[in-house]
Amino acid sequence: FIQNRDSSISKKIKSWQNIQFKLIGKINLEGYVGFANLPNQVYRKSVKRGFEFTLMVVGESGLGKSTLINSLFLTDLYSPEYPGPSHRIKKTVQVEQSKVLIKEGGVQLLLTIVDTPGFGDAVDNSNCWQPVIDHIDSKFEDYLNAESRVNRRQMPDSRVHCCLYFIAPSGHGLKPLDIEFMKRLHEKVNIIPLIAKADTLTPEECQQFKKQIMREIQEHKIKIYEFPETDDEEESKLVKKIKDRLPLAVVGSNTIIEVNGKRVRGRQYPWGVAEVENGEHCDFTILRNMLIRTHMQDLKDVTNNVHYENYRSRKLAAVTYNGVDNNKNKGQLTKTLEKNKKKKIF
Amino acid sequence: FIQNRDSSISKKIKSWQNIQFKLIGKINLEGYVGFANLPNQVYRKSVKRGFEFTLMVVGESGLGKSTLINSLFLTDLYSPEYPGPSHRIKKTVQVEQSKVLIKEGGVQLLLTIVDTPGFGDAVDNSNCWQPVIDHIDSKFEDYLNAESRVNRRQMPDSRVHCCLYFIAPSGHGLKPLDIEFMKRLHEKVNIIPLIAKADTLTPEECQQFKKQIMREIQEHKIKIYEFPETDDEEESKLVKKIKDRLPLAVVGSNTIIEVNGKRVRGRQYPWGVAEVENGEHCDFTILRNMLIRTHMQDLKDVTNNVHYENYRSRKLAAVTYNGVDNNKNKGQLTKTLEKNKKKKIF
Repeated sequence: FIQNRDSSISKKIKSWQNIQFKLIGKINLEGYVGFANLPNQVYRKSVKRGFEFTLMVVGESGLGKSTLINSLFLTDLYSPEYPGPSHRIKKTVQVEQSKVLIKEGGVQLLLTIVDTPGFGDAVDNSNCWQPVIDHIDSKFEDYLNAESRVNRRQMPDSRVHCCLYFIAPSGHGLKPLDIEFMKRLHEKVNIIPLIAKADTLTPEECQQFKKQIMREIQEHKIKIYEFPETDDEEESKLVKKIKDRLPLAVVGSNTIIEVNGKRVRGRQYPWGVAEVENGEHCDFTILRNMLIRTHMQDLKDVTNNVHYENYRSRKLAAVTYNGVDNNKNKGQLTKTLEKNKKKKIF
Repeated sequence: FIQNRDSSISKKIKSWQNIQFKLIGKINLEGYVGFANLPNQVYRKSVKRGFEFTLMVVGESGLGKSTLINSLFLTDLYSPEYPGPSHRIKKTVQVEQSKVLIKEGGVQLLLTIVDTPGFGDAVDNSNCWQPVIDHIDSKFEDYLNAESRVNRRQMPDSRVHCCLYFIAPSGHGLKPLDIEFMKRLHEKVNIIPLIAKADTLTPEECQQFKKQIMREIQEHKIKIYEFPETDDEEESKLVKKIKDRLPLAVVGSNTIIEVNGKRVRGRQYPWGVAEVENGEHCDFTILRNMLIRTHMQDLKDVTNNVHYENYRSRKLAAVTYNGVDNNKNKGQLTKTLEKNKKKKIF
């Protein structure tokens, strides 16, 4: 399967040289031509078009998933009038989508939050990852169908770009369900593991817990989201700093508290305030910066170039080699093909 | 066929609301979340990846096509060692590609120049557009095949993003061949008409000639490249200025001349110097700014979203509705399909 994240020009040139054309060569320009402005053209077009991002949160109920989402996007996506799913939905695993259009500095973001209320809440949690897998695959399938249509006027993208996986702050390492879930999902979605409600761990405990988790992740060959390589020194420093703190320990809060005259999101305890955005209290700021300010586009690109491409090639290979579906969800594809036929797709 | 150039978020939201999801609503943010940085992420990624652009030049030989290319990219793409195609190639219409990798301000551009030596040079020029059409279509087909492959690791894009069509500075309007060519190509490629060697026309003659040409283009319902609509006032002013000067009258030169102590590209006549980059002498600067500095990305997007999509839907519709190819190039598609089968595409 696909390992490379994107195909750079230099790679393409290599292949072109072999395949079809003569490359006259590299030429040094005599003056300013102006194509250095191309990235600006791309920039402006992207602003005009707007952005879409789909974020999935998975973890047992009570780990503060809705609260963290509110804290991340500084918005009451969930409120008393529209509470988080755990207050509305019964305890079987469901997948729920909410969309919100937010705007900042002229940039529009259509944010989709995919929640999985009921995950891990049953006595027997066998297969509780299945609805999640089905959801992710169905979004890939939607996209594949849209892409295969004769008329592709609209290409809605509901693919899940990132999955925040909430680990209970037990201090005892991963549960079997955590391992099982991540192993089954890591080739379908970018997983970022989080330690939920990290304000129940002392800094030393948290440090130990993180080490333990990363050890288990390596042992079980779980592939969490991998940061892109970069030649930029500053960026690579930043990435190293994030990597060293994985899994990120987070605290969320819907409450604004005044601390030393400043209004901050935090949790008021008798012994003090756990501040959400204080880097000494938890890794929330690191998570937000990474998820939103620096790596959101990369999460989208990896979803498109790696996870979606793998899904697509698996799917198509199954059709082409045998004319029938070899995948587990047998019958599904045949239906799709028939549906496509009716819709005049292939 | 597709008329809209790109599908903006707001259009998508409308369709989504009808189709599948509840949109919680627009929410005003309490503070800075950081996704306003998304366009910067896109910017940086585009620089990292590099750019590709394919420019086609069409027109009778002797109209200064190679010289104009040299002038546009400030480079001796064609030189005494590697002369323009007219000095190398016999007078039947051929299509020739040259690639050059140029770098400016950290931005890499892999530029492909497609030349059509011999175009319009014969006594009987019937069908001399056919090699050009075939070339454009074959690049679309290459892309369609690449896109349909199970394994899409590499997606070389050789599609022609823009066609500079050189009109002889006759002062007498378009020739029948000009009209025929543009009508046959205008739904396949972005055509920008140019008046070649405009230094043979006085400003008044040039003005008249331009009006005449635009009248004929309208009469014959020729669709030349249409500039994108914009809400930005400055941009829309700029676009109006360009539109008012269509077709652009250009002068190219490989010679650097000193004029008033400044070294400029120009043509030295006994009565003075025709300066390539002087806005009062010709529209070269307008062409270069538009083609390279402001609208290169849009030319690529229109190629992808309009011309390529039209090609693709025609092609696929022909397959789906009848199982056989209805297009003129009969047999071609069947071959492709068989080829695809072998390659395990679809």
